Amino acid sequence: MTAQAGTTAAGGVATARGFRAAGISAGIKANRNPDLALIVSDVPATAAAVFTINKAQAAPVVVSKEHLEKSGGVVRAIVVNSGCANACTGEAGMTAAREMASATAALVGCAPEQVLVASTGVIGVGLPMDKIRSGLPQAFAALGSNQGPQAARAIMTTDPFPKEASAAVTIGAKTVTIGGMAKGSGMIEPMMATMLGFVTTDAAVAQPILRRALVEVVNDTFNAITVDGECSTNDTVMLLANGQSGVTIGEAEYAAFVAGLRAVCLELALGIVRGGEGATKLVTVTVSGAASPAEARKAAKAIANSPLVKTAIHGGDPNWGRLIAVAGRAGVAFEPQRAKVTIGSIVLFEHGRPYDDRAPQAAEYLRGTDLAVGVDLGAGSDASTVWTCDLSAEYVKINAEYRT
Amino acid sequence: MTAQAGTTAAGGVATARGFRAAGISAGIKANRNPDLALIVSDVPATAAAVFTINKAQAAPVVVSKEHLEKSGGVVRAIVVNSGCANACTGEAGMTAAREMASATAALVGCAPEQVLVASTGVIGVGLPMDKIRSGLPQAFAALGSNQGPQAARAIMTTDPFPKEASAAVTIGAKTVTIGGMAKGSGMIEPMMATMLGFVTTDAAVAQPILRRALVEVVNDTFNAITVDGECSTNDTVMLLANGQSGVTIGEAEYAAFVAGLRAVCLELALGIVRGGEGATKLVTVTVSGAASPAEARKAAKAIANSPLVKTAIHGGDPNWGRLIAVAGRAGVAFEPQRAKVTIGSIVLFEHGRPYDDRAPQAAEYLRGTDLAVGVDLGAGSDASTVWTCDLSAEYVKINAEYRT
Repeated sequence: MTAQAGTTAAGGVATARGFRAAGISAGIKANRNPDLALIVSDVPATAAAVFTINKAQAAPVVVSKEHLEKSGGVVRAIVVNSGCANACTGEAGMTAAREMASATAALVGCAPEQVLVASTGVIGVGLPMDKIRSGLPQAFAALGSNQGPQAARAIMTTDPFPKEASAAVTIGAKTVTIGGMAKGSGMIEPMMATMLGFVTTDAAVAQPILRRALVEVVNDTFNAITVDGECSTNDTVMLLANGQSGVTIGEAEYAAFVAGLRAVCLELALGIVRGGEGATKLVTVTVSGAASPAEARKAAKAIANSPLVKTAIHGGDPNWGRLIAVAGRAGVAFEPQRAKVTIGSIVLFEHGRPYDDRAPQAAEYLRGTDLAVGVDLGAGSDASTVWTCDLSAEYVKINAEYRT
Repeated sequence: MTAQAGTTAAGGVATARGFRAAGISAGIKANRNPDLALIVSDVPATAAAVFTINKAQAAPVVVSKEHLEKSGGVVRAIVVNSGCANACTGEAGMTAAREMASATAALVGCAPEQVLVASTGVIGVGLPMDKIRSGLPQAFAALGSNQGPQAARAIMTTDPFPKEASAAVTIGAKTVTIGGMAKGSGMIEPMMATMLGFVTTDAAVAQPILRRALVEVVNDTFNAITVDGECSTNDTVMLLANGQSGVTIGEAEYAAFVAGLRAVCLELALGIVRGGEGATKLVTVTVSGAASPAEARKAAKAIANSPLVKTAIHGGDPNWGRLIAVAGRAGVAFEPQRAKVTIGSIVLFEHGRPYDDRAPQAAEYLRGTDLAVGVDLGAGSDASTVWTCDLSAEYVKINAEYRT
């Protein structure tokens, strides 16, 4: 659970050997932007996935879980649409998600349960299956190992830019590639999963190891970000491993593989925050001096979701009192007299004393776009880091007008 | 714990017999708006109070708790300043809060512990005691039973309007008056208390009964509102009873007294929400069909604090899927197939089926300014109502620029 990770390179979900991707416009979005993505592995790939813990789970989440079980965790493809979440759509929605998988399976030439499904967009509106049906053959025809960028665009909703990342991990004399894409801009506070994230690797990884690696990495990356404290009905991260590099990941190779996977997932997760709805600043929130790791995370999440903290940072106001007020209400052990509050490296409160004379210096620091704030709770020795963005008037504008 | 309450009338914190109030400008606020308020009872009054449960408690909260204990719950006055919270100010802040009380006591002619203190404003800035010292005699000279409105203005920070309410309760042949004032606009999600609320009554009420009535009423009123999910370092509600009506409240009179107290507190609390930072709509959120009252409250609070719900309502977008998504992530028993979502009286989701064709009708309803949304969780028979406001770009503007 170390924080450092490997470095990432250009590349995306089709960068690992034996993967192809596509992204096309099927007409689900009224504005004709790309809205249908396909990821296909040339050979059966081991799959692991984490899903939303929201009790209102979208049809594609339910169907993907079923398919992972029925296929024994070996799949050939993932099909994703944006523009419609296919959530809270009853039996019709389940039928649509199943048909989306089976129509993809017919094109790829595999069993329906070897296809995973994901959707994102408005909740409670039926999936336009005629558009999916006519779009799928187009997407299949467009598949290519150079089409990752198109796929990354086709899964976007209010995202201002596509999120892609890849990493190369050297194991012995060989190289394993890990690449992925993600989307998400609002309704982001993953609890055990996240918005949509798709990662592929050409390593050969047995399902239990693949799942362990994914859960471990997601906890420090996708699950450590927040835009607005919301957890969607559709949150999903899927990881496919097709073995085409000829490298098998066992216990000896696990640490190197996880470092690469973490680098890719962290870059994708930070991309989601940087591209958060209305975001103008990326904020790293670190809570230290906590009585337990869980309390550190809880306080860091509370700060990262506080509208008063997020608006102050948006306005470049070094209103550090809001940080301490949130720590105080977070429901964790906290000793104000021993607490310490920092903005960047500037200490604004320590030993029960404010240093408001340093406010101008902190205000200057807050003009940047990549910021760090910290609260030491003075109650123990555990720490946690989460990433958030500022809250701008643009966030309100985007979400007040989403469907209009 | 009935929801209905008596009706309120014009009046405020000095309407009950034997109370006087004042509000003046002491120069704490740079803009010279009123910032120092005084409430004095002609005779010693029984006092009850609830305070923030934030672990970072402001100096005036600590001092008021001490004074309530030392005085045996019998006080003469309350002194309040706006423009500075006197929170996270260390020992200097404690000394300032104590001096604020003792200077008031010297004017009123009582023991220092018979004065309660409250402050509101920026956290982490020292209280300008010279201004308090020179302002207090002015406030004392201005005291009058017709000065409630001035006091209500002097406790405002970002509030767009003052909040006052009173109620008359007939008991036998006599009438008891209950009146109060409140302030609060941002950093509002009371947990066991609220922003600043001050209520006076000319009933005679023994301390245990007064405290029981206050706790019971605050739970359904001040503690059932939220503007932004924040809980301040200074939240306080104080209730003084001076007996000048000649009516004593015992068990027989308790229900009538509580109904009047609830009417006053509810009107003050809803005033806080209506005047929430950037608010343009008052939203009543009712969660029913919950497995327990605590789960009903938890889900209602989650909905009432959801930025996606609040922005959708701001934009008049009947995006009911966000209501169900929040209910799903609220950590309560919830059965999507049995759940029901309403906007006003329009059912948009029921029996696992969306009714998106009713969206235009719901959009029309959302053009109003006094709105209700409901989620039946389909998991039990308990319900809870909380009040919130919409989230506007103006909220961001206010909080990004608070100190600049």
